[in-house]
Amino acid sequence: MAESPFNISRFTAFFPIAGWLKTYTRQDFNNDLFAGIVTAILLVPQGIAYAILAGLPPQLGLYASILPPVLYALFGTSRTLSVGPVSIAAIMIASALNEPGISVLGPPEQSALILSAECGIIMLLMAFLRMGGLVNFISHPVLTGFTSGASILIIWNQLPQLAGLKSPSCAFDSACYRDYFLAYNSTALSIGIAAVIMLIFFGKPLTSLLKKVGFKFALITALSKCGPLLTVLLATVAVSHFDLTAQNQVTVVGQVPAGFPSLSLDFINIEKWRLLFPSAAFIALIAYVESVAIAKVTANLRGEKIVPNQELIGLGAANLATAISGGMPVAGGFSRTMVNFSAGARTQMAMLIAAGIIALAVMFFSHWFENIPKPALAAIILVAIIPLVRLKNICRLWCYDRGDCTAETVTLFGVLVLGIEKGIALGVILTLVNQLRKISRPHIAVAGRIPDTEHYRNAKRHSVETWRHLLLLRIDESITFANINYIEGFIASELIQQPDVKHVILIFTSVSDVDTTALEVLESLNHDLQASGITLHLSEVKGPLLDKFKRTDFLIQLKPGKVFFHTEDAVRELA
Amino acid sequence: MAESPFNISRFTAFFPIAGWLKTYTRQDFNNDLFAGIVTAILLVPQGIAYAILAGLPPQLGLYASILPPVLYALFGTSRTLSVGPVSIAAIMIASALNEPGISVLGPPEQSALILSAECGIIMLLMAFLRMGGLVNFISHPVLTGFTSGASILIIWNQLPQLAGLKSPSCAFDSACYRDYFLAYNSTALSIGIAAVIMLIFFGKPLTSLLKKVGFKFALITALSKCGPLLTVLLATVAVSHFDLTAQNQVTVVGQVPAGFPSLSLDFINIEKWRLLFPSAAFIALIAYVESVAIAKVTANLRGEKIVPNQELIGLGAANLATAISGGMPVAGGFSRTMVNFSAGARTQMAMLIAAGIIALAVMFFSHWFENIPKPALAAIILVAIIPLVRLKNICRLWCYDRGDCTAETVTLFGVLVLGIEKGIALGVILTLVNQLRKISRPHIAVAGRIPDTEHYRNAKRHSVETWRHLLLLRIDESITFANINYIEGFIASELIQQPDVKHVILIFTSVSDVDTTALEVLESLNHDLQASGITLHLSEVKGPLLDKFKRTDFLIQLKPGKVFFHTEDAVRELA
Repeated sequence: MAESPFNISRFTAFFPIAGWLKTYTRQDFNNDLFAGIVTAILLVPQGIAYAILAGLPPQLGLYASILPPVLYALFGTSRTLSVGPVSIAAIMIASALNEPGISVLGPPEQSALILSAECGIIMLLMAFLRMGGLVNFISHPVLTGFTSGASILIIWNQLPQLAGLKSPSCAFDSACYRDYFLAYNSTALSIGIAAVIMLIFFGKPLTSLLKKVGFKFALITALSKCGPLLTVLLATVAVSHFDLTAQNQVTVVGQVPAGFPSLSLDFINIEKWRLLFPSAAFIALIAYVESVAIAKVTANLRGEKIVPNQELIGLGAANLATAISGGMPVAGGFSRTMVNFSAGARTQMAMLIAAGIIALAVMFFSHWFENIPKPALAAIILVAIIPLVRLKNICRLWCYDRGDCTAETVTLFGVLVLGIEKGIALGVILTLVNQLRKISRPHIAVAGRIPDTEHYRNAKRHSVETWRHLLLLRIDESITFANINYIEGFIASELIQQPDVKHVILIFTSVSDVDTTALEVLESLNHDLQASGITLHLSEVKGPLLDKFKRTDFLIQLKPGKVFFHTEDAVRELA
Repeated sequence: MAESPFNISRFTAFFPIAGWLKTYTRQDFNNDLFAGIVTAILLVPQGIAYAILAGLPPQLGLYASILPPVLYALFGTSRTLSVGPVSIAAIMIASALNEPGISVLGPPEQSALILSAECGIIMLLMAFLRMGGLVNFISHPVLTGFTSGASILIIWNQLPQLAGLKSPSCAFDSACYRDYFLAYNSTALSIGIAAVIMLIFFGKPLTSLLKKVGFKFALITALSKCGPLLTVLLATVAVSHFDLTAQNQVTVVGQVPAGFPSLSLDFINIEKWRLLFPSAAFIALIAYVESVAIAKVTANLRGEKIVPNQELIGLGAANLATAISGGMPVAGGFSRTMVNFSAGARTQMAMLIAAGIIALAVMFFSHWFENIPKPALAAIILVAIIPLVRLKNICRLWCYDRGDCTAETVTLFGVLVLGIEKGIALGVILTLVNQLRKISRPHIAVAGRIPDTEHYRNAKRHSVETWRHLLLLRIDESITFANINYIEGFIASELIQQPDVKHVILIFTSVSDVDTTALEVLESLNHDLQASGITLHLSEVKGPLLDKFKRTDFLIQLKPGKVFFHTEDAVRELA
């Protein structure tokens, strides 16, 4: 009894797939089969689109949708997360590939493999060092600001594609921009706009229409999720039928090689590994943070549990898999995971099925993808990405927490102006500085007793009793090097205002720790106060902190000052 | 009445000298005159020694002792701080001058001027941005570790000088080191050791001897402070008399140009400014932090007040002054300030007098300095620096706070192994990470009521009443993005252990803030708990935080959960 269950639970902790496979039912499979097909239908155009967005050959997005979800299914703790190419990682890859000195060292496919391998290694290393908690240091405002900024960059990158234009190269020259935009291709733009309209229609409008008509929920889901595939299909048929590729009217995906890429370790280039490492670290961090955030959304809806450290193993394994199977860095995709979830996926079996379908497509039907027009793919990206631009949140934040609002705004503009990596670094640093700023000016309340109780409250907010010879100060923060000087100054200025004070009582209800710097300053403060005939006392010191004090001679130095268990005891004795 | 006192106080805030000059007495002047002479006697050999330590011509240390203290006297808030060349800044200057690419761009004197100018500008800019509080972000352990490490570097640099050796160039080759040390010069070593013994004797042994004999305190101070000057004098006389400079037996200071340097702005070299900027930033930061720390020690002893932001103005002006008068970066020196203070200095008039004396010495007696033997100067540096190596502190810290102990040890070894700038950067980063680590795993107490009272305490430390349907949790830290996931996990695991719980009451006595990320997670936690039939309540929420909550709909979402003023109210209603 003692040994084996423990081993089993450790085994399933490392291979979560073993946990659900044991109780897997026929009904689960039916659900997963349906969800897997629906997700695969979305994955094909998304995979191709995101590979192109990253500046890579289209097939890389498909390759990245086969082996990585299989590995994630083995190790990952989310049952519905759809791992594969994602838009935010794609724009980060594009930015990494455009770094000076990268392209001369080899083809972009090679860079994509190196980035994937580095992402995988970084994630596994973080898992090994149990740094899953790192996700806690990117606050929601920074993440939202980053996502919005990156999404705006993607929109700015894709809008020209919709109109059959290349990316602009007019820096701050309005005439150049005018000429550039006027050179749009009307056929491409028509296809693009038609695709956008169709995709929007397949969202809410179609589902509410079908609901009114009385269709079943599963069928509604299935039909509405076919939007991207149908859009691509119609656009491709239109291009082929009217031969719209002639005279470069509409650019298409072009040849997609059939069959699997050979498993490869062909990415040994030390210099390139070194140059790409910082980008890989950022991609790994963002891929991890975004994936966990998405996984948590669906897990919470079903009462399942995400284990951050195990997610690092799952995502790391998936990225190593994409590196050896010729793909691009992968993560959990938001729209796809929501599709998978709402199509009824029970377990990662759905993603295994989707991966199988894509493998079949790559093997036998790759020539079908040749004539997909790029404007239709741009439309798919745009419709998927626009909901990720969340600017409304900034106003809400402004009311609640100015610091968080600033962090979100700065991250957003940082991403737009300085680029993705510097933008997010700026946001993280700003949150940390903000945090320290808050700690460094703690709230300190001059406290008094609420009459006829034993409760002590802020004298500014409540009508309380106070005593001429007593100064009761409640310090609302742990006392550290960052705020001890402020606290010392506060006490000094209170003593100037109340010259009759003989006893200063520091109420430690909110003080969880006193670090070395603070202890030294408190010791010298106590010394100075004693010299002016004032005694320093403490009250309501928490157990762990009192233990810490007892390891020094601070409590002896305090004498005749005391540590009171309750503030009331102090007042009774001293008032 | 309303206008003029306010203006006067603003005027004296900016020119603290105006504050003390108004009430300056004859007695003050007598005290300052004595202290000024004593300090000048120490400043001459120290100035020359620190200039040589920095790898600069000896006269730069003297120039830096004339104009800078005058400027500091105008703007600085400490009455006894002795501003001039200091050892820690000197070793940092030496390290900056040895950076690759610096020496080819011009002579070291020019670099010293650029460093001074940059330090001055950085300090004034920090003052303008009111960043005086930055001093709060270098904790005592990091500062102590840094000072100890830098002092060990200085000792390592000066020991060979004591024996008439150049700095060694034997990397990890013990045979080379043996040959190197065996090449010591016995005459130089004799002078060096004699000087060390004499300096040590002029410290405690002489003062206690004179006390026993019954000398007056002022005379004892004066005599004991003459140690460095007498040492240098005797050594110089010995060198001159026995012609010890012949055959390079003993190296001496060499020619010191007479008269003032011409006021100069000859340091325009953009490339060098750029290269030296990071070093200047570190020197400025350390100069500022160390000076304020020293100024506070003496100010506390006399009940005077140091204004950190005004110190930035004083030190910044002093560094600009040293830049245009041909000196080197300056700061407040520890040993000199203590000498000035214990010699009875009342105001900065003492330093003005010392500056006048050094100006006279530079003008008329510079040829006296030529034959000062370098081993004697090395002895002065060594005796001044050894007390700054404080390793005992590390053991004390180990008992009190492991994190602070690690920070101090890492900073010390960082300075020794990686160099001064990287070492201190490492220490600062480590303290910040440590701080975040503490915040990210807050102490959470399952609380209960102490029988027959209204007090609630940690159930693990006290025998308390608890109730099956109630879970009372006291969170001992502000709730932020860094710890909300930990808190959420803690609540979830407590609920698994106590399946009968119907009400979770979060006691907010220690919670001063809830940031946006934490609020979002609390909202979703509340939602999940409601779905499982559990109600979330808060108690003892502080006024400012409650105001913040009221600007959102969080309190509405909580319903039927309530915010209780006292935990006791919650228990009465729900138990």
